[in-house]
Amino acid sequence: MSGFDEERAARHKARMQRKKALIDAHIQAAEEERGLLLVNTGNGKGKSSAAFGVLARALGHGMNCAVIQFIKSRSDTGEEAFFRDHPRVQWHVMGDGFTWDTQNDEQDRKTARAAWEQACVYLRDEKIDLLVLDEFTYTLKYGWLALDEVMQVINERPMMQHLIITGRAAPDGLIAEADTVTEMRLEKHAYAAGVKAMPGIEW
Amino acid sequence: MSGFDEERAARHKARMQRKKALIDAHIQAAEEERGLLLVNTGNGKGKSSAAFGVLARALGHGMNCAVIQFIKSRSDTGEEAFFRDHPRVQWHVMGDGFTWDTQNDEQDRKTARAAWEQACVYLRDEKIDLLVLDEFTYTLKYGWLALDEVMQVINERPMMQHLIITGRAAPDGLIAEADTVTEMRLEKHAYAAGVKAMPGIEW
Repeated sequence: MSGFDEERAARHKARMQRKKALIDAHIQAAEEERGLLLVNTGNGKGKSSAAFGVLARALGHGMNCAVIQFIKSRSDTGEEAFFRDHPRVQWHVMGDGFTWDTQNDEQDRKTARAAWEQACVYLRDEKIDLLVLDEFTYTLKYGWLALDEVMQVINERPMMQHLIITGRAAPDGLIAEADTVTEMRLEKHAYAAGVKAMPGIEW
Repeated sequence: MSGFDEERAARHKARMQRKKALIDAHIQAAEEERGLLLVNTGNGKGKSSAAFGVLARALGHGMNCAVIQFIKSRSDTGEEAFFRDHPRVQWHVMGDGFTWDTQNDEQDRKTARAAWEQACVYLRDEKIDLLVLDEFTYTLKYGWLALDEVMQVINERPMMQHLIITGRAAPDGLIAEADTVTEMRLEKHAYAAGVKAMPGIEW
Protein backbone atom coordinates (compact mmCIF):
# COMPACT_ATOMS: atom_id res chain seq x y z
CA MET A 1 0.00 0.00 0.00
CA SER A 2 1.25 3.48 -0.85
CA GLY A 3 1.16 6.28 1.76
CA PHE A 4 -1.78 7.78 -0.11
CA ASP A 5 -3.74 4.51 0.04
CA GLU A 6 -2.99 4.06 3.73
CA GLU A 7 -4.20 7.57 4.50
CA ARG A 8 -7.34 6.94 2.46
CA ALA A 9 -7.99 3.64 4.31
CA ALA A 10 -7.48 5.34 7.69
CA ARG A 11 -9.94 8.13 6.80
CA HIS A 12 -12.48 5.53 5.63
CA LYS A 13 -12.05 3.59 8.88
CA ALA A 14 -12.51 6.68 11.08
CA ARG A 15 -15.66 7.66 9.15
CA MET A 16 -17.10 4.14 9.49
CA GLN A 17 -16.28 4.04 13.23
CA ARG A 18 -18.28 7.23 13.78
CA LYS A 19 -21.13 5.79 11.72
CA LYS A 20 -21.09 2.54 13.67
CA ALA A 21 -21.25 4.37 17.03
CA LEU A 22 -24.31 6.27 15.81
CA ILE A 23 -26.04 3.15 14.51
CA ASP A 24 -25.26 1.15 17.68
CA ALA A 25 -26.82 3.93 19.78
CA HIS A 26 -29.97 3.77 17.63
CA ILE A 27 -30.14 -0.01 17.99
CA GLN A 28 -29.83 0.25 21.78
CA ALA A 29 -32.59 2.85 21.90
CA ALA A 30 -35.01 0.50 20.10
CA GLU A 31 -35.85 -1.99 22.83
CA GLU A 32 -39.61 -2.42 22.84
CA GLU A 33 -40.87 -5.88 21.80
CA ARG A 34 -44.40 -6.44 20.56
CA GLY A 35 -46.49 -7.65 17.66
CA LEU A 36 -46.41 -5.24 14.74
CA LEU A 37 -48.99 -4.03 12.26
CA LEU A 38 -47.39 -3.75 8.82
CA VAL A 39 -49.10 -2.25 5.78
CA ASN A 40 -47.84 -2.75 2.21
CA THR A 41 -49.69 -0.41 -0.11
CA GLY A 42 -49.16 1.56 -3.35
CA ASN A 43 -49.55 0.72 -7.04
CA GLY A 44 -46.22 -1.06 -7.55
CA LYS A 45 -45.26 -4.72 -7.51
CA GLY A 46 -44.22 -6.30 -4.22
CA LYS A 47 -47.06 -5.77 -1.73
CA SER A 48 -48.16 -9.39 -1.50
CA SER A 49 -44.76 -10.87 -2.30
CA ALA A 50 -43.16 -8.89 0.55
CA ALA A 51 -45.82 -10.33 2.87
CA PHE A 52 -45.03 -13.86 1.62
CA GLY A 53 -41.30 -13.21 2.10
CA VAL A 54 -41.94 -12.23 5.71
CA LEU A 55 -44.10 -15.36 6.02
CA ALA A 56 -41.09 -17.47 4.96
CA ARG A 57 -38.92 -15.57 7.44
CA ALA A 58 -41.40 -16.14 10.29
CA LEU A 59 -41.67 -19.85 9.44
CA GLY A 60 -37.87 -20.01 9.55
CA HIS A 61 -38.11 -18.81 13.15
CA GLY A 62 -40.60 -21.55 13.98
CA MET A 63 -43.68 -19.32 14.10
CA ASN A 64 -47.30 -20.32 13.42
CA CYS A 65 -48.87 -18.38 10.57
CA ALA A 66 -52.14 -17.84 8.73
CA VAL A 67 -52.94 -16.21 5.40
CA ILE A 68 -56.30 -15.04 4.12
CA GLN A 69 -56.59 -13.88 0.51
CA PHE A 70 -59.53 -11.47 0.31
CA ILE A 71 -59.86 -10.90 -3.44
CA LYS A 72 -58.04 -13.73 -5.17
CA SER A 73 -60.26 -16.65 -6.13
CA ARG A 74 -57.75 -18.74 -8.10
CA SER A 75 -55.98 -21.55 -6.30
CA ASP A 76 -53.20 -22.19 -8.82
CA THR A 77 -50.72 -19.58 -7.58
CA GLY A 78 -47.10 -20.47 -6.86
CA GLU A 79 -47.34 -19.04 -3.35
CA GLU A 80 -50.30 -21.23 -2.42
CA ALA A 81 -48.69 -24.34 -3.95
CA PHE A 82 -45.53 -23.59 -1.99
CA PHE A 83 -46.98 -22.75 1.42
CA ARG A 84 -50.31 -24.55 1.74
CA ASP A 85 -48.93 -27.90 2.87
CA HIS A 86 -46.56 -26.43 5.43
CA PRO A 87 -47.58 -27.77 8.88
CA ARG A 88 -47.42 -24.28 10.46
CA VAL A 89 -49.42 -22.41 7.80
CA GLN A 90 -53.19 -22.05 7.48
CA TRP A 91 -53.95 -20.83 3.95
CA HIS A 92 -57.38 -19.52 2.90
CA VAL A 93 -58.34 -18.29 -0.56
CA MET A 94 -61.63 -16.53 0.21
CA GLY A 95 -62.11 -14.06 -2.63
CA ASP A 96 -64.44 -14.17 -5.62
CA GLY A 97 -62.10 -12.33 -7.97
CA PHE A 98 -61.95 -8.65 -8.82
CA THR A 99 -64.99 -6.38 -8.80
CA TRP A 100 -64.97 -6.46 -12.62
CA ASP A 101 -65.10 -10.27 -12.51
CA THR A 102 -68.02 -10.65 -10.12
CA GLN A 103 -69.86 -7.51 -11.35
CA ASN A 104 -72.01 -7.89 -8.27
CA ASP A 105 -71.52 -5.50 -5.38
CA GLU A 106 -73.87 -7.39 -3.06
CA GLN A 107 -71.96 -10.65 -3.57
CA ASP A 108 -68.62 -8.82 -3.03
CA ARG A 109 -69.89 -7.55 0.34
CA LYS A 110 -70.93 -10.99 1.51
CA THR A 111 -67.64 -12.51 0.40
CA ALA A 112 -65.66 -9.81 2.25
CA ARG A 113 -67.74 -10.33 5.39
CA ALA A 114 -67.15 -14.10 5.37
CA ALA A 115 -63.40 -13.65 4.93
CA TRP A 116 -63.32 -11.04 7.72
CA GLU A 117 -65.06 -13.48 10.06
CA GLN A 118 -62.30 -16.00 9.39
CA ALA A 119 -59.74 -13.22 10.05
CA CYS A 120 -61.43 -12.48 13.39
CA VAL A 121 -60.93 -16.09 14.48
CA TYR A 122 -57.17 -15.73 13.96
CA LEU A 123 -57.05 -12.21 15.42
CA ARG A 124 -58.31 -13.72 18.69
CA ASP A 125 -56.01 -16.75 18.60
CA GLU A 126 -52.88 -16.48 20.79
CA LYS A 127 -51.30 -19.38 18.92
CA ILE A 128 -51.07 -17.42 15.65
CA ASP A 129 -47.79 -15.48 15.58
CA LEU A 130 -48.22 -13.92 12.14
CA LEU A 131 -51.40 -13.25 10.19
CA VAL A 132 -51.42 -12.00 6.60
CA LEU A 133 -54.58 -10.35 5.27
CA ASP A 134 -53.75 -10.22 1.59
CA GLU A 135 -55.53 -7.60 -0.56
CA PHE A 136 -57.54 -6.57 2.49
CA THR A 137 -57.45 -2.83 1.78
CA TYR A 138 -60.06 -3.23 -0.96
CA THR A 139 -62.67 -4.28 1.59
CA LEU A 140 -62.21 -0.85 3.19
CA LYS A 141 -61.81 1.11 -0.04
CA TYR A 142 -65.12 -0.17 -1.42
CA GLY A 143 -66.87 0.20 1.93
CA TRP A 144 -67.60 -3.53 2.31
CA LEU A 145 -66.26 -3.34 5.87
CA ALA A 146 -66.14 -0.38 8.26
CA LEU A 147 -62.69 0.81 9.37
CA ASP A 148 -63.78 1.37 13.00
CA GLU A 149 -65.07 -2.18 13.38
CA VAL A 150 -61.94 -3.61 11.78
CA MET A 151 -59.50 -1.52 13.84
CA GLN A 152 -61.15 -2.49 17.09
CA VAL A 153 -60.54 -6.19 16.48
CA ILE A 154 -57.01 -5.52 15.18
CA ASN A 155 -56.07 -3.40 18.19
CA GLU A 156 -57.37 -6.03 20.62
CA ARG A 157 -55.40 -8.89 19.06
CA PRO A 158 -52.81 -10.82 21.13
CA MET A 159 -49.93 -8.60 22.25
CA MET A 160 -47.19 -10.44 20.32
CA GLN A 161 -49.15 -11.23 17.15
CA HIS A 162 -47.80 -9.69 13.95
CA LEU A 163 -50.26 -8.64 11.27
CA ILE A 164 -49.55 -7.74 7.65
CA ILE A 165 -52.17 -6.05 5.49
CA THR A 166 -51.63 -5.61 1.75
CA GLY A 167 -53.42 -3.85 -1.09
CA ARG A 168 -53.63 -0.57 -2.96
CA ALA A 169 -55.06 2.62 -1.50
CA ALA A 170 -54.74 1.82 2.21
CA PRO A 171 -57.00 4.32 4.00
CA ASP A 172 -55.40 7.02 6.17
CA GLY A 173 -57.05 5.64 9.31
CA LEU A 174 -55.29 2.30 8.81
CA ILE A 175 -51.94 3.94 8.05
CA ALA A 176 -52.24 6.06 11.20
CA GLU A 177 -52.59 2.93 13.37
CA ALA A 178 -49.85 0.90 11.63
CA ASP A 179 -46.28 0.48 12.91
CA THR A 180 -44.51 0.01 9.60
CA VAL A 181 -45.92 1.26 6.32
CA THR A 182 -44.32 0.88 2.91
CA GLU A 183 -45.66 2.40 -0.27
CA MET A 184 -44.65 0.11 -3.12
CA ARG A 185 -44.29 2.85 -5.70
CA LEU A 186 -44.60 1.79 -9.34
CA GLU A 187 -41.51 2.93 -11.18
CA LYS A 188 -42.17 0.65 -14.15
CA HIS A 189 -43.75 -2.72 -14.84
CA ALA A 190 -42.99 -5.31 -17.53
CA TYR A 191 -46.72 -5.75 -18.15
CA ALA A 192 -47.02 -2.21 -19.49
CA ALA A 193 -44.20 -3.06 -21.93
CA GLY A 194 -46.24 -5.98 -23.33
CA VAL A 195 -44.85 -8.86 -21.26
CA LYS A 196 -47.34 -11.47 -20.11
CA ALA A 197 -47.82 -12.08 -16.36
CA MET A 198 -45.07 -14.65 -15.94
CA PRO A 199 -45.66 -17.67 -13.64
CA GLY A 200 -43.24 -17.62 -10.70
CA ILE A 201 -43.02 -13.83 -10.88
CA GLU A 202 -46.56 -12.45 -10.95
CA TRP A 203 -48.52 -15.43 -9.58
CA MET B 1 -84.40 -5.89 -3.51
CA SER B 2 -86.13 -2.53 -3.95
CA GLY B 3 -86.36 -0.90 -7.39
CA PHE B 4 -83.66 1.52 -6.27
CA ASP B 5 -81.31 -1.30 -5.28
CA GLU B 6 -81.92 -3.12 -8.54
CA GLU B 7 -81.12 -0.02 -10.54
CA ARG B 8 -77.97 0.52 -8.49
CA ALA B 9 -76.89 -3.11 -9.03
CA ALA B 10 -77.52 -2.82 -12.77
CA ARG B 11 -75.45 0.38 -12.99
CA HIS B 12 -72.64 -1.30 -11.03
CA LYS B 13 -72.74 -4.31 -13.35
CA ALA B 14 -72.61 -2.19 -16.51
CA ARG B 15 -69.63 -0.21 -15.13
CA MET B 16 -67.78 -3.40 -14.22
CA GLN B 17 -68.50 -4.95 -17.64
CA ARG B 18 -66.89 -1.94 -19.35
CA LYS B 19 -63.93 -2.20 -16.98
CA LYS B 20 -63.54 -5.92 -17.62
CA ALA B 21 -63.52 -5.40 -21.41
CA LEU B 22 -60.72 -2.84 -21.01
CA ILE B 23 -58.68 -5.07 -18.73
CA ASP B 24 -59.14 -8.13 -20.95
CA ALA B 25 -57.87 -6.14 -23.94
CA HIS B 26 -54.76 -5.13 -21.94
CA ILE B 27 -54.16 -8.76 -20.94
CA GLN B 28 -54.41 -9.90 -24.56
CA ALA B 29 -51.95 -7.21 -25.65
CA ALA B 30 -49.33 -8.45 -23.18
CA GLU B 31 -48.15 -11.63 -24.87
CA GLU B 32 -44.36 -11.57 -24.81
CA GLU B 33 -42.72 -14.25 -22.63
CA ARG B 34 -39.17 -13.91 -21.36
CA GLY B 35 -37.01 -13.74 -18.27
CA LEU B 36 -37.45 -10.47 -16.41
CA LEU B 37 -35.09 -8.15 -14.58
CA LEU B 38 -36.78 -6.86 -11.44
CA VAL B 39 -35.34 -4.18 -9.18
CA ASN B 40 -36.61 -3.52 -5.64
CA THR B 41 -35.10 -0.29 -4.35
CA GLY B 42 -35.92 2.63 -2.01
CA ASN B 43 -35.52 3.22 1.73
CA GLY B 44 -38.62 1.35 2.92
CA LYS B 45 -39.14 -2.17 4.22
CA GLY B 46 -39.91 -4.94 1.73
CA LYS B 47 -37.11 -4.98 -0.86
CA SER B 48 -35.57 -8.30 0.20
CA SER B 49 -38.78 -9.79 1.55
CA ALA B 50 -40.55 -9.16 -1.78
CA ALA B 51 -37.69 -11.01 -3.50
CA PHE B 52 -38.08 -13.92 -1.05
CA GLY B 53 -41.84 -13.93 -1.64
CA VAL B 54 -41.24 -14.25 -5.38
CA LEU B 55 -38.72 -17.00 -4.60
CA ALA B 56 -41.47 -18.93 -2.78
CA ARG B 57 -43.81 -18.32 -5.72
CA ALA B 58 -41.21 -19.57 -8.24
CA LEU B 59 -40.53 -22.67 -6.13
CA GLY B 60 -44.27 -23.31 -6.07
CA HIS B 61 -44.12 -23.46 -9.88
CA GLY B 62 -41.28 -26.01 -9.73
CA MET B 63 -38.50 -23.61 -10.72
CA ASN B 64 -34.80 -23.87 -9.81
CA CYS B 65 -33.54 -20.86 -7.89
CA ALA B 66 -30.40 -19.31 -6.43
CA VAL B 67 -29.87 -16.51 -3.91
CA ILE B 68 -26.69 -14.57 -3.21
CA GLN B 69 -26.63 -12.17 -0.27
CA PHE B 70 -24.01 -9.51 -1.01
CA ILE B 71 -23.83 -7.60 2.28
CA LYS B 72 -25.36 -9.82 4.94
CA SER B 73 -22.80 -11.91 6.86
CA ARG B 74 -25.10 -13.44 9.49
CA SER B 75 -26.47 -16.90 8.88
CA ASP B 76 -29.22 -16.92 11.52
CA THR B 77 -31.95 -15.26 9.48
CA GLY B 78 -35.41 -16.76 9.21
CA GLU B 79 -35.28 -16.67 5.41
CA GLU B 80 -32.07 -18.66 5.26
CA ALA B 81 -33.32 -21.20 7.82
CA PHE B 82 -36.49 -21.59 5.80
CA PHE B 83 -35.08 -21.86 2.27
CA ARG B 84 -31.56 -23.24 2.54
CA ASP B 85 -32.50 -26.93 2.73
CA HIS B 86 -34.97 -26.76 -0.15
CA PRO B 87 -33.73 -29.10 -2.90
CA ARG B 88 -34.27 -26.48 -5.62
CA VAL B 89 -32.57 -23.53 -3.87
CA GLN B 90 -28.87 -22.65 -3.77
CA TRP B 91 -28.34 -20.15 -0.94
CA HIS B 92 -25.11 -18.15 -0.51
CA VAL B 93 -24.39 -15.66 2.27
CA MET B 94 -21.32 -13.93 0.84
CA GLY B 95 -21.19 -10.55 2.61
CA ASP B 96 -18.95 -9.32 5.40
CA GLY B 97 -21.54 -7.05 6.97
CA PHE B 98 -22.17 -3.35 6.44
CA THR B 99 -19.39 -0.90 5.56
CA TRP B 100 -19.49 0.39 9.15
CA ASP B 101 -18.91 -3.16 10.40
CA THR B 102 -15.91 -4.02 8.25
CA GLN B 103 -14.49 -0.46 8.25
CA ASN B 104 -12.24 -1.66 5.45
CA ASP B 105 -12.95 -0.54 1.90
CA GLU B 106 -10.33 -2.84 0.36
CA GLN B 107 -11.86 -5.90 2.04
CA ASP B 108 -15.37 -4.80 0.96
CA ARG B 109 -14.19 -4.67 -2.66
CA LYS B 110 -12.71 -8.15 -2.54
CA THR B 111 -15.83 -9.56 -0.90
CA ALA B 112 -18.07 -7.96 -3.53
CA ARG B 113 -15.87 -9.30 -6.33
CA ALA B 114 -16.01 -12.86 -4.96
CA ALA B 115 -19.80 -12.72 -4.62
CA TRP B 116 -20.13 -11.32 -8.15
CA GLU B 117 -18.05 -14.22 -9.51
CA GLN B 118 -20.52 -16.62 -7.93
CA ALA B 119 -23.36 -14.60 -9.48
CA CYS B 120 -21.71 -14.90 -12.91
CA VAL B 121 -21.74 -18.69 -12.60
CA TYR B 122 -25.54 -18.63 -12.17
CA LEU B 123 -26.05 -15.91 -14.79
CA ARG B 124 -24.55 -18.34 -17.34
CA ASP B 125 -26.48 -21.38 -16.10
CA GLU B 126 -29.55 -22.29 -18.17
CA LYS B 127 -30.83 -24.50 -15.36
CA ILE B 128 -31.35 -21.53 -13.01
CA ASP B 129 -34.84 -20.11 -13.56
CA LEU B 130 -34.67 -17.37 -10.92
CA LEU B 131 -31.63 -15.68 -9.42
CA VAL B 132 -31.85 -13.23 -6.51
CA LEU B 133 -28.94 -10.84 -5.94
CA ASP B 134 -29.86 -9.50 -2.52
CA GLU B 135 -28.45 -6.09 -1.49
CA PHE B 136 -26.52 -6.00 -4.76
CA THR B 137 -27.07 -2.28 -5.43
CA TYR B 138 -24.48 -1.36 -2.78
CA THR B 139 -21.70 -2.95 -4.85
CA LEU B 140 -22.55 -0.39 -7.56
CA LYS B 141 -23.26 2.52 -5.23
CA TYR B 142 -19.84 2.23 -3.56
CA GLY B 143 -18.08 1.58 -6.87
CA TRP B 144 -16.90 -1.92 -5.89
CA LEU B 145 -18.18 -3.18 -9.25
CA ALA B 146 -18.60 -1.30 -12.54
CA LEU B 147 -22.13 -1.02 -13.93
CA ASP B 148 -21.04 -1.66 -17.54
CA GLU B 149 -19.33 -4.93 -16.65
CA VAL B 150 -22.30 -6.06 -14.59
CA MET B 151 -24.93 -5.15 -17.19
CA GLN B 152 -23.11 -7.01 -19.93
CA VAL B 153 -23.28 -10.29 -18.01
CA ILE B 154 -26.88 -9.63 -16.96
CA ASN B 155 -28.00 -8.86 -20.52
CA GLU B 156 -26.36 -12.01 -21.87
CA ARG B 157 -28.02 -14.33 -19.33
CA PRO B 158 -30.31 -17.17 -20.51
CA MET B 159 -33.40 -15.86 -22.30
CA MET B 160 -35.94 -17.20 -19.79
CA GLN B 161 -33.97 -16.57 -16.58
CA HIS B 162 -35.56 -14.14 -14.12
CA LEU B 163 -33.29 -11.92 -12.05
CA ILE B 164 -34.20 -9.87 -8.98
CA ILE B 165 -31.84 -7.22 -7.62
CA THR B 166 -32.52 -5.54 -4.28
CA GLY B 167 -31.01 -2.69 -2.29
CA ARG B 168 -31.24 1.05 -1.73
CA ALA B 169 -30.17 3.64 -4.27
CA ALA B 170 -30.30 1.53 -7.44
CA PRO B 171 -28.32 3.48 -10.05
CA ASP B 172 -30.17 5.02 -13.01
CA GLY B 173 -28.30 2.80 -15.47
CA LEU B 174 -29.68 -0.31 -13.78
CA ILE B 175 -33.21 1.08 -13.58
CA ALA B 176 -33.09 1.96 -17.29
CA GLU B 177 -32.33 -1.67 -18.19
CA ALA B 178 -34.83 -3.28 -15.78
CA ASP B 179 -38.30 -4.53 -16.77
CA THR B 180 -40.08 -4.01 -13.45
CA VAL B 181 -38.90 -1.49 -10.87
CA THR B 182 -40.51 -0.81 -7.51
CA GLU B 183 -39.44 1.89 -5.11
CA MET B 184 -40.23 0.66 -1.61
CA ARG B 185 -40.96 4.09 -0.17
CA LEU B 186 -40.62 4.44 3.60
CA GLU B 187 -43.87 5.79 4.97
CA LYS B 188 -43.01 4.82 8.55
CA HIS B 189 -41.06 2.13 10.38
CA ALA B 190 -41.56 0.59 13.84
CA TYR B 191 -37.82 0.87 14.47
CA ALA B 192 -37.97 4.67 14.47
CA ALA B 193 -40.73 4.40 17.12
CA GLY B 194 -38.40 2.45 19.42
CA VAL B 195 -39.38 -1.12 18.54
CA LYS B 196 -36.56 -3.66 18.34
CA ALA B 197 -35.92 -5.49 15.06
CA MET B 198 -38.33 -8.38 15.64
CA PRO B 199 -37.36 -11.91 14.56
CA GLY B 200 -39.67 -13.21 11.86
CA ILE B 201 -40.36 -9.67 10.66
CA GLU B 202 -37.01 -7.93 10.17
CA TRP B 203 -34.68 -10.94 9.92
